[in-house]
Amino acid sequence: MNSSAWKAAGCGVALAIVAGSAFAAPKPEDEIRYRQSVFNVIGRNFGGVLGAIAKGERPYDQAEAVKAAKLVADLSTLPFASFGPGTDAGASHKSSPKIWEDPAKFQSLADKFQLEAAKLPAAAADLATLKAQVAETGKTCKGCHDEYRLK
Amino acid sequence: MNSSAWKAAGCGVALAIVAGSAFAAPKPEDEIRYRQSVFNVIGRNFGGVLGAIAKGERPYDQAEAVKAAKLVADLSTLPFASFGPGTDAGASHKSSPKIWEDPAKFQSLADKFQLEAAKLPAAAADLATLKAQVAETGKTCKGCHDEYRLK
Repeated sequence: MNSSAWKAAGCGVALAIVAGSAFAAPKPEDEIRYRQSVFNVIGRNFGGVLGAIAKGERPYDQAEAVKAAKLVADLSTLPFASFGPGTDAGASHKSSPKIWEDPAKFQSLADKFQLEAAKLPAAAADLATLKAQVAETGKTCKGCHDEYRLK
Repeated sequence: MNSSAWKAAGCGVALAIVAGSAFAAPKPEDEIRYRQSVFNVIGRNFGGVLGAIAKGERPYDQAEAVKAAKLVADLSTLPFASFGPGTDAGASHKSSPKIWEDPAKFQSLADKFQLEAAKLPAAAADLATLKAQVAETGKTCKGCHDEYRLK
């Protein structure tokens, strides 16, 4: 498939964004938008689906819960690579400058979130284990937000 | 976990967004932002990862390709529920008014995209099959964008 065929396929814009690659550096504004997009999708599936089930505000449906849990687990691996050097500015965001002052500390909290999020799919097979794992994962959301998300 | 514990866990905002549920109707601006977020994550993983591999701009790594393919397949199931009645306005977007004039026609193109996206994970196990399936999926992107995405 040659370059013009790709453009014809409507993929030109998307192809300009090559994430986490040595071949093209994404622009800071694209990195900011990407991490915000990932967190938005995580937020709806974690809080809006799993959290609502855990709170009893939404009925427990195993297939729906497992689907949302897998999404959260998979998406949890994506956003943190988009907090690289230079992505502290370029678009409006709520990320604290402290992230870029001590990236290792930020990453340690990101690791905790990813560790707990990875347990969600198995936990989602049963309502009681889902509730417990949603609570554990929620603590890691809060731990990072308290420290690194501006009001 | 009671309501105040949930708020303490930092999930209050996310919990206010209960997607696809009879329990709370998301605001149009949240629906618009959600579908844009999903398409942004799809775009980077489809165009930026799988498309770049298919074009030879990024080396083929089976594990990376399968991961991106699964993400695209899973995410492809999410955005179209957020084009419901009343979500044609409320925030800036590029979706054509034609979507809301004939939702069934729009859904038929969405179905084609989902059908091809669902084939990506298996196809990603091999570079040649991945290239072919990226091309097929890309046609469904273009088919919908040409008709329903404003310039």
